[in-house]
Amino acid sequence: MCAELTQNLAKFATGPLVVSSAARLVTSLSMLDWLAVGRAGVDEPVARIIRARALNEGGAGRAHLFGTSTTVPARMAALVNGTTSHALDYDDTHFAHIGHPSVAVIPAAMAMAEQRDLTRAEVSEAALMGMELSIRVGLWLGRAHYQAGFHMTATAGAFGATAAAGRLAGLNTEQMAHALGLVATRAAGLKAQFGTDGKPYNAGLAATAGVEVAQLVAAGLTANPQAMEREFGFGATHHGEGNTDRALTGLGDVWLFEGVSHKFHACCHGLHAALEAARDLDIAAPEIAEMTVTTSPRWMDVCNQPSPDTGLGAKFSYRTVLAMRALGHDTARLDSYSAAICTDARLVALRERIKVQPDTSLSETETILAVLRRDGARLEAHHDLAIPMALAVRQDRVRTKAVGLIGADAVDQAWGMLRSGGARATGFARLMAGSSQG
Amino acid sequence: MCAELTQNLAKFATGPLVVSSAARLVTSLSMLDWLAVGRAGVDEPVARIIRARALNEGGAGRAHLFGTSTTVPARMAALVNGTTSHALDYDDTHFAHIGHPSVAVIPAAMAMAEQRDLTRAEVSEAALMGMELSIRVGLWLGRAHYQAGFHMTATAGAFGATAAAGRLAGLNTEQMAHALGLVATRAAGLKAQFGTDGKPYNAGLAATAGVEVAQLVAAGLTANPQAMEREFGFGATHHGEGNTDRALTGLGDVWLFEGVSHKFHACCHGLHAALEAARDLDIAAPEIAEMTVTTSPRWMDVCNQPSPDTGLGAKFSYRTVLAMRALGHDTARLDSYSAAICTDARLVALRERIKVQPDTSLSETETILAVLRRDGARLEAHHDLAIPMALAVRQDRVRTKAVGLIGADAVDQAWGMLRSGGARATGFARLMAGSSQG
Repeated sequence: MCAELTQNLAKFATGPLVVSSAARLVTSLSMLDWLAVGRAGVDEPVARIIRARALNEGGAGRAHLFGTSTTVPARMAALVNGTTSHALDYDDTHFAHIGHPSVAVIPAAMAMAEQRDLTRAEVSEAALMGMELSIRVGLWLGRAHYQAGFHMTATAGAFGATAAAGRLAGLNTEQMAHALGLVATRAAGLKAQFGTDGKPYNAGLAATAGVEVAQLVAAGLTANPQAMEREFGFGATHHGEGNTDRALTGLGDVWLFEGVSHKFHACCHGLHAALEAARDLDIAAPEIAEMTVTTSPRWMDVCNQPSPDTGLGAKFSYRTVLAMRALGHDTARLDSYSAAICTDARLVALRERIKVQPDTSLSETETILAVLRRDGARLEAHHDLAIPMALAVRQDRVRTKAVGLIGADAVDQAWGMLRSGGARATGFARLMAGSSQG
Repeated sequence: MCAELTQNLAKFATGPLVVSSAARLVTSLSMLDWLAVGRAGVDEPVARIIRARALNEGGAGRAHLFGTSTTVPARMAALVNGTTSHALDYDDTHFAHIGHPSVAVIPAAMAMAEQRDLTRAEVSEAALMGMELSIRVGLWLGRAHYQAGFHMTATAGAFGATAAAGRLAGLNTEQMAHALGLVATRAAGLKAQFGTDGKPYNAGLAATAGVEVAQLVAAGLTANPQAMEREFGFGATHHGEGNTDRALTGLGDVWLFEGVSHKFHACCHGLHAALEAARDLDIAAPEIAEMTVTTSPRWMDVCNQPSPDTGLGAKFSYRTVLAMRALGHDTARLDSYSAAICTDARLVALRERIKVQPDTSLSETETILAVLRRDGARLEAHHDLAIPMALAVRQDRVRTKAVGLIGADAVDQAWGMLRSGGARATGFARLMAGSSQG
């Protein structure tokens, strides 16, 4: 028996949702995290350029942008906010399909909700549903799709953005199938853009695609409602594995989104497991005689710069970030990574006592950190990012990260809105402007 | 030796052009044809919906839309005009790569030129260059790309639209390479949309992608300038054959665009060779005892409805369109195809004397038409659409088609502008509004 992919996704996207309290809390954390990394990203060149374009075009619309209090049409807001919130690459990640769910979906949901003056609670529900759907589309596409060269954040993300925006646009199940079919013709994004402005732009493209197709289908446009799974469709053309069962198992009952990872260090994701292991051991620089990092070979040519001398280089260096942490620098803050820290005498001395080695038995999310203390004791910590953090810990850490990025006042305001039901989406959206008005 | 694809395309797109007089004339014909089919398409549902969306959003911009005199931002105009001009599927086709070059590229060139108040001559030059580039990108991608399920009009077209818009935005060669690299991350369009509103939307997406990436790169955005041909790039991910030599041979000297085919019948392209063969024989209904159509098997399940009873059905029926022509109906006019003609007694009687048969030795562009006259004479005509029509004949026929669609006054105005050098692009664009103001 072959289950109909799009039909099942469309029913899920338009039907009543039974949301676990854990999924609800994690959604709130992702919305806070998204707000913080988006506001922190407004001065990145790619964010400035795309925001200027939006302000230049203007148009009738009431959706807010990161970094300004001017409002624009929903479609444009989704493009700008998707790009801006991915500009620092500091947003959340889901390892089931390897994608960043929030930056494609939340901007689409926020923009559509503002345009239609819906509540913040409606945004959260639609965003959770859309992010869950993007993860499941990612599972349907499978690793082959990612390995061929597609940026899952953008491809799977466009379907999630469409589901979220479509739900908030009031599409019925049949219309939702048309919207998912229509976005199949434009869901796109290449890994060839990694390391360039094209990477965050991919996230913006996914978000704006979701808003635009939802609006067009709401206005009567029709498409092939099976353009995801049928001949000449998205899966067939985009190296999809077609794991329909994997995508649909537990849909509506199990919230895979609960397993999303938030980033707690403003550096390459390959370094995070090592930093978490260091956090578990909690050893300060003076105690360290030697330190050995054992990690997946995949990261050796990604983030193992031995002795960088710039802030950007530091973000791709095991030795540097571990030395920073041992010396008490906060690896969650953007301004911790600098040329100055790279040449600090204490850091350089400690860095020389840190060794990095690959081990093929470790997955991409695992790292083992071994420390020889000056007193002769040997300590070891193994950390796997794929094992979800306890919710209370996660809440505390997302809050701490957000405070570091946008300050306690903004975080308290945002959290108050996220934990209350009735406020309008626009109230939350006003927090996106922040202090930069560029 | 491996020639660098993007680098060569970027040089071509930004350098001085040596344009043959034939290429110049065919470009004018394609611009007239595009104007006519775009204006004729304004009342199609997909055109109405997307135009309404643009007018609803508004924004600061001076680019015209088909079907209204209101102007909008260039990016939006390209989306609406690309979609509208492909809505009737009556625009030009290039068989080298099987794509519709004009509907992706001309809307991008027109919108960018209006936004920057350039001349009509600059538009024509950029449009020709962009259409040529889209054909060559199509050759680079090869048949494997089309057969996998990609709509070449949209995928190859997005690169052509980018080149045209980028040239008019004043990009230098390095910026053009970034623009082509950036659009590689969003060039998209599935054949799964054929027969739905998604097909013309694909053309609009290509056009708007070209305008947007040109604007962003002009403002400073950067991308992977080799995202077309390198690892995890467009070719590798999209079943491209990577025929670099084929794409680059004669670039700048030979204008493949000269071989573009205009459609002279408002029905499925599979019927055109048969209608041209009938035109060559020029036999009226009373003389026909029997008629036999021999055609590529490819068309047998596309446009061989034996006895349709609707206007849409007639557009996919060899027997019906050949009978229409023999009875003196103009197959170039949209209103010739109707339920009434399908049940006309004379047509039904004639249709019964027409036989259709497949022949694997014929290409998709060939048809043989054999007629047995009542006087016993046997006549046969072979027509191949791939053999270009003499320029003078082509000019006459494009004019006749355009007059049938938008009237002689509009055609004369447009042609006057197309054959003079100095007028502003906006003058030509004003003709797009036509009479419908919906």
